[in-house]
Amino acid sequence: MQKKILLSLSNILSEINYKKIIKGKINIIINNVNDIRNAKKNEISFLSNIKYLNFLQKTKASAVFVQKKHLKYLPKNTIALISEKPEQEFLKVINLFYPDSYYTKSTYKFLTTKQIKSKFKKIKFGLNLCVEENVSIGFGVLIGNNVTIKKNSIIGNNSILGSSVVIESSVVGKNVHICDGSIIGKKGFGFKFINGHCYRVPHIGKVLLKDNVEIGANCVVDRGSFSDTVIGKNTFIDNLVHIAHNVVIGENCIVAGQVGIAGSTTIGNNVSIGGQSGISGHLLIGNNVKIGGKSGVVKDINDNQVVMGYPAKPFKEFIKSNR
Amino acid sequence: MQKKILLSLSNILSEINYKKIIKGKINIIINNVNDIRNAKKNEISFLSNIKYLNFLQKTKASAVFVQKKHLKYLPKNTIALISEKPEQEFLKVINLFYPDSYYTKSTYKFLTTKQIKSKFKKIKFGLNLCVEENVSIGFGVLIGNNVTIKKNSIIGNNSILGSSVVIESSVVGKNVHICDGSIIGKKGFGFKFINGHCYRVPHIGKVLLKDNVEIGANCVVDRGSFSDTVIGKNTFIDNLVHIAHNVVIGENCIVAGQVGIAGSTTIGNNVSIGGQSGISGHLLIGNNVKIGGKSGVVKDINDNQVVMGYPAKPFKEFIKSNR
Amino acid sequence: MQKKILLSLSNILSEINYKKIIKGKINIIINNVNDIRNAKKNEISFLSNIKYLNFLQKTKASAVFVQKKHLKYLPKNTIALISEKPEQEFLKVINLFYPDSYYTKSTYKFLTTKQIKSKFKKIKFGLNLCVEENVSIGFGVLIGNNVTIKKNSIIGNNSILGSSVVIESSVVGKNVHICDGSIIGKKGFGFKFINGHCYRVPHIGKVLLKDNVEIGANCVVDRGSFSDTVIGKNTFIDNLVHIAHNVVIGENCIVAGQVGIAGSTTIGNNVSIGGQSGISGHLLIGNNVKIGGKSGVVKDINDNQVVMGYPAKPFKEFIKSNR
Repeated sequence: MQKKILLSLSNILSEINYKKIIKGKINIIINNVNDIRNAKKNEISFLSNIKYLNFLQKTKASAVFVQKKHLKYLPKNTIALISEKPEQEFLKVINLFYPDSYYTKSTYKFLTTKQIKSKFKKIKFGLNLCVEENVSIGFGVLIGNNVTIKKNSIIGNNSILGSSVVIESSVVGKNVHICDGSIIGKKGFGFKFINGHCYRVPHIGKVLLKDNVEIGANCVVDRGSFSDTVIGKNTFIDNLVHIAHNVVIGENCIVAGQVGIAGSTTIGNNVSIGGQSGISGHLLIGNNVKIGGKSGVVKDINDNQVVMGYPAKPFKEFIKSNR
Repeated sequence: MQKKILLSLSNILSEINYKKIIKGKINIIINNVNDIRNAKKNEISFLSNIKYLNFLQKTKASAVFVQKKHLKYLPKNTIALISEKPEQEFLKVINLFYPDSYYTKSTYKFLTTKQIKSKFKKIKFGLNLCVEENVSIGFGVLIGNNVTIKKNSIIGNNSILGSSVVIESSVVGKNVHICDGSIIGKKGFGFKFINGHCYRVPHIGKVLLKDNVEIGANCVVDRGSFSDTVIGKNTFIDNLVHIAHNVVIGENCIVAGQVGIAGSTTIGNNVSIGGQSGISGHLLIGNNVKIGGKSGVVKDINDNQVVMGYPAKPFKEFIKSNR
Repeated sequence: MQKKILLSLSNILSEINYKKIIKGKINIIINNVNDIRNAKKNEISFLSNIKYLNFLQKTKASAVFVQKKHLKYLPKNTIALISEKPEQEFLKVINLFYPDSYYTKSTYKFLTTKQIKSKFKKIKFGLNLCVEENVSIGFGVLIGNNVTIKKNSIIGNNSILGSSVVIESSVVGKNVHICDGSIIGKKGFGFKFINGHCYRVPHIGKVLLKDNVEIGANCVVDRGSFSDTVIGKNTFIDNLVHIAHNVVIGENCIVAGQVGIAGSTTIGNNVSIGGQSGISGHLLIGNNVKIGGKSGVVKDINDNQVVMGYPAKPFKEFIKSNR
């Protein structure tokens, strides 16, 4: 997103006013922040949700903020940064690496119509197209009117953007269709109250829409906080759907109108979700799951299940309890 | 939508690789596709949902794809095209008549401000109005900023379009008010999985908004697949409402915020629908029905009923079961 | 909103064809309409919802439409205007004072880019900004593309408006963030059926967004009918949320995606509302209340309660009844 910053761990800890004594190479260079699942060597991470404990055990992060009780799960090459509130410490660190990461400011530098025509080949676009710098648009793309494509976006070949679409920090595959009025890549809804002050969680991730995805009209797909929000190949999404930060949806899924999926939930392949259903955050929904209309899903769902209801239960139980 | 195409039935069947032997005039001219209820002479149709069996018995279509078991319901002048998957055959036929019907491509030909002023009388409009060719706008119409009116649209006298509205393939009556950000006439959400390939259902229908209709802000009303989506006279719709393809709503209805109505449902006159309610597809809701807020309607409702709940039940039962 | 109009009470009653005999100074000057809670001297008001009976007892309005049975609650200096349908009479009176109040017509007078740059200091804005007359924009404001700011709006210092935002009749505080595609200050959804004719309720109120408020993408916040819609300091609202006319939300609240709040409901401070929850109109939700996701709230909630379900009940009961 912004330019890479390199900081020594001791610098980082001093900047965020972390005073505990740590074991390990305090002068190791840290070059990025990342989540516990994806963190690589020379990156710093954290664990707060115990759902991700198994990722902690395998993490490649060089340093991790953890609560004392989770210390034993840490790989031995990873430096433990003990804290009662690991996520809060981590939020402060993100801001060292990405000082401007909550609200991605517009560059206010737009290509002229002439520049758009010369830079992108075989595309067609309507009136009032706003394209910032550092944008790539593939062959055969069709774009409606009053569209905004902000920096750090890639639009794949033969994709279609409807009118009044706004895209930012997104990688759009081939043959993707984003209908009118949808907002893709907006920062997610993330806050932490620290000592009574509402602290905004940076969003340095992207939205990845894989090939052949369709997004209906007036939807919102938020970009990830520091991993990405992903919608898999051939997945179709209807109108007015809300997809929060870090959600991962598999391939060949069908998501009906007004569905809402809360942050960091992962959904498998071939899943169908009925209209107005809601899925809580941090859940794992298996492959081939069918979720009936208006369901409220609050627990993980195994592969091949059919559920409905609020809270969602196996379909047969739902039918029985409503006889 | 596109130019009329004339095809002999034998040509059609050969194009879609239909090999069964049929009884009847194989060389009859077919000039259009249509649904079973509205099909006229020289049109081809299909029956897949048995809810529409009574329409099959009275159809005027010249040829109909049907399953063997429904053969006996066919009028004797209608040619039977037996198929285990009538809708799939029909989808292929639609594409013969409307090759470009899934995504209606923009013409990318817009009237200039000067042309708009000279062509449409006594209208007022804001900045950045995008009007394609083949659009008609009546007297006294008021239009906001950044509005897109795509081809094949008619706006009736004294109607009001808010800012950031997108309209396509729609016939808007008199004194209609469409508030800011609403999308009217977008293609519906229709797919069929045929042999593992997701096949998009063409949308050649329109949206008809009758006189005095009001549509709130950031709503989406999809156009019909091959019949029309209709909202009757004096019906008022609040914000963020989703109305799917082929839905028909009667007169004097009140539809509150965030309601969703799935495809092909028909709603009578004087119906009120509470906020966040959802109505499944292919249902029949009678006249004077009242649906309480957040209800999930999964069955037909007779005239004059008051229902609430998920699934929706008579209001008294809802109250009793929640005491 | 429009210029102040002064009318004698006798004139008003004659204009609306009110024929009952009244006690009191028939020639008193009335200079405005107002709700029963906020009405001042020389203003006219009404009581129809008995929830507001205690406000009637303390009203400062000079004249009030009331049903006969509520006559005894009227302060003695207030003139009683007896009517079986107080709200209907009042609606007619609003139209005398605000003849153009249902749909606020655009002025169709926009500042040029040059005028915007010279009038507002230290702001940055994208392409196609539409600013009507009588708008104020503070220092350091950032504005996206295709934004519309209609008359009677104030944007406070350092606030951010995303792309495709539409604002009207709103007072936006400092450091407010309104994300892409949201519509702020649209007229509310208010109607009365009088003798079979649907009568539109004027909306002369505003939207007040206090300092540090955040509104997500593709939300709609309606302006008040004749009081204001208010969102308190430090309150964060996620995507696709619907906030109806006259709603008052306190400070430090968190409202998740796709929540809907119906008209005239008041919500306290430090309230959190889970995704897809709906709250009925005219309710009072206390401070520090937590409302679980997808709840349907149909009754007032006292301070510090945790509720969930449809209809919403105390959280422990919800868990028990779903075991």
